[in-house]
Amino acid sequence: MEAGLPDFGKIVIFGTGLIGGSFALGLKEAGAVEEVVGFGRTPATLRAAQELGVIDRAGINPAHELEDADIVLVATPVAQMPEIFARIAPYLGPRTIVTDGGSTKGDVVAAARAAFGDRIAQFVPAHPIAGAENSGPSAARWDLYRGKKVVVTPLPENADDALDRVKLAWSLCGADIYELSPEAHDRVFAAVSHLPHLLSFALVHDLAVREDADLFFTFAASGFRDFTRIAASHPEMWRDICLANREALLEELDSYRAQLDELRTALARNDGERLEEIFGLARQARRNWAGG
Amino acid sequence: MEAGLPDFGKIVIFGTGLIGGSFALGLKEAGAVEEVVGFGRTPATLRAAQELGVIDRAGINPAHELEDADIVLVATPVAQMPEIFARIAPYLGPRTIVTDGGSTKGDVVAAARAAFGDRIAQFVPAHPIAGAENSGPSAARWDLYRGKKVVVTPLPENADDALDRVKLAWSLCGADIYELSPEAHDRVFAAVSHLPHLLSFALVHDLAVREDADLFFTFAASGFRDFTRIAASHPEMWRDICLANREALLEELDSYRAQLDELRTALARNDGERLEEIFGLARQARRNWAGG
Repeated sequence: MEAGLPDFGKIVIFGTGLIGGSFALGLKEAGAVEEVVGFGRTPATLRAAQELGVIDRAGINPAHELEDADIVLVATPVAQMPEIFARIAPYLGPRTIVTDGGSTKGDVVAAARAAFGDRIAQFVPAHPIAGAENSGPSAARWDLYRGKKVVVTPLPENADDALDRVKLAWSLCGADIYELSPEAHDRVFAAVSHLPHLLSFALVHDLAVREDADLFFTFAASGFRDFTRIAASHPEMWRDICLANREALLEELDSYRAQLDELRTALARNDGERLEEIFGLARQARRNWAGG
Repeated sequence: MEAGLPDFGKIVIFGTGLIGGSFALGLKEAGAVEEVVGFGRTPATLRAAQELGVIDRAGINPAHELEDADIVLVATPVAQMPEIFARIAPYLGPRTIVTDGGSTKGDVVAAARAAFGDRIAQFVPAHPIAGAENSGPSAARWDLYRGKKVVVTPLPENADDALDRVKLAWSLCGADIYELSPEAHDRVFAAVSHLPHLLSFALVHDLAVREDADLFFTFAASGFRDFTRIAASHPEMWRDICLANREALLEELDSYRAQLDELRTALARNDGERLEEIFGLARQARRNWAGG
């Protein structure tokens, strides 16, 4: 790179919504990219993305856009990634780096290995941790990633240079970069994100199917509101995430059920000391986390 | 009652903190009480309550204060109520009504029956649903109960007149009055309050005891924050609530575990249809509740 030139030439984004669109806007805000080309499911979305300045133009054919691309970000729902990887694999240039924004990594890596084969070194998986309450190009914001975490989960095949380029791109968007193996990533997010969603859906469902459900909801208050906020999340998206991270989630679910069994035993035995010990340790950990 | 006079003469409050103090201030604001006498565990608390105008004076001896009291509100932690009921039982006047602010009802009713014997008709149990983030007399607010729910759980022995007086007092504080049997109350609150607390404590504890706990907490985000907010609740208080409502809570916990078993089976079988169905029904119910 010569002084004065942007860090990146052409960036290609598959999925120009909240995640992909904000990546594009963040790099543009930093003056770090020459051109952003977008691919999406509908012409209307791509037109909106272009009108909003999220992309410079819509791509027509991947065969014509990838050879000279610096970075390709696949920011679609995880379930669509295998097909997109297969579509783009034949056209990658020798220096093109592919990365993704999926919230599970084991399945994405498997799909990438299947599609990219002996060019797997060009794929650097990543997971930007950013809320998803809104979607579509109009939800994209140049500052979405400022101060947010992005977890890069490198593969053994990745060269340092490819890894550094992906980290640089996210850093230029203002994100704090972390590194985990794909396996550690999936275990951690099963525990702190996927399992809580499952547990929250389960509680609301358990009440909602009762004949006298209304009676229960009438007296639900602020504790219930906080605990179940994530049960208003998107059912298809969470179905896909749960299935994509099935093995790790099953392990976390079993660990949690063992914890519930222990609490049930303490309660059935009137063991107040043990209950207080568990609650007290949880409270301390929750407070340390919230204060940290 | 003659026109122009307050609805209540003397009110006696055991526990002059958030719950009892706000009851006193609410009635004072409404001009509905002549005198509020407070009992508490420490002279310092009672002095603070008096300086803040929560009570008019501190009581010294229950034997001298209860005969002419209109309403006695026991607003201490539930675990202290049996002892207070036993202390006050010998001195109730023939028209004195006792009520409470406990968040469980079956155990409070049992303690009241043991203490009041054939005067149990004078005890009208109730549960004001109001947050408890702060405590002590300085947390008391005259408008704490405005628009909040108070669940009165009458006993078969209660005369309509006694029930109406308790409802009137809470209405004058601005609360919306609901009526449930003590059993229905405990079942409902086990499901919508006590169980979620238990589940939230369980999740944080399950993570906190791991050797690599820090790794998990590092990547916990907004969903985790909402889900675990109630895990920062007071351990002793929640130990007491769980034990006080043990039977109903065990039933709710078992129902919830059956729901988790079903989700585990669906996940293990890759049954995305069933997962989406459960998540979708939960989301719809959560949205209806939040909008209602």
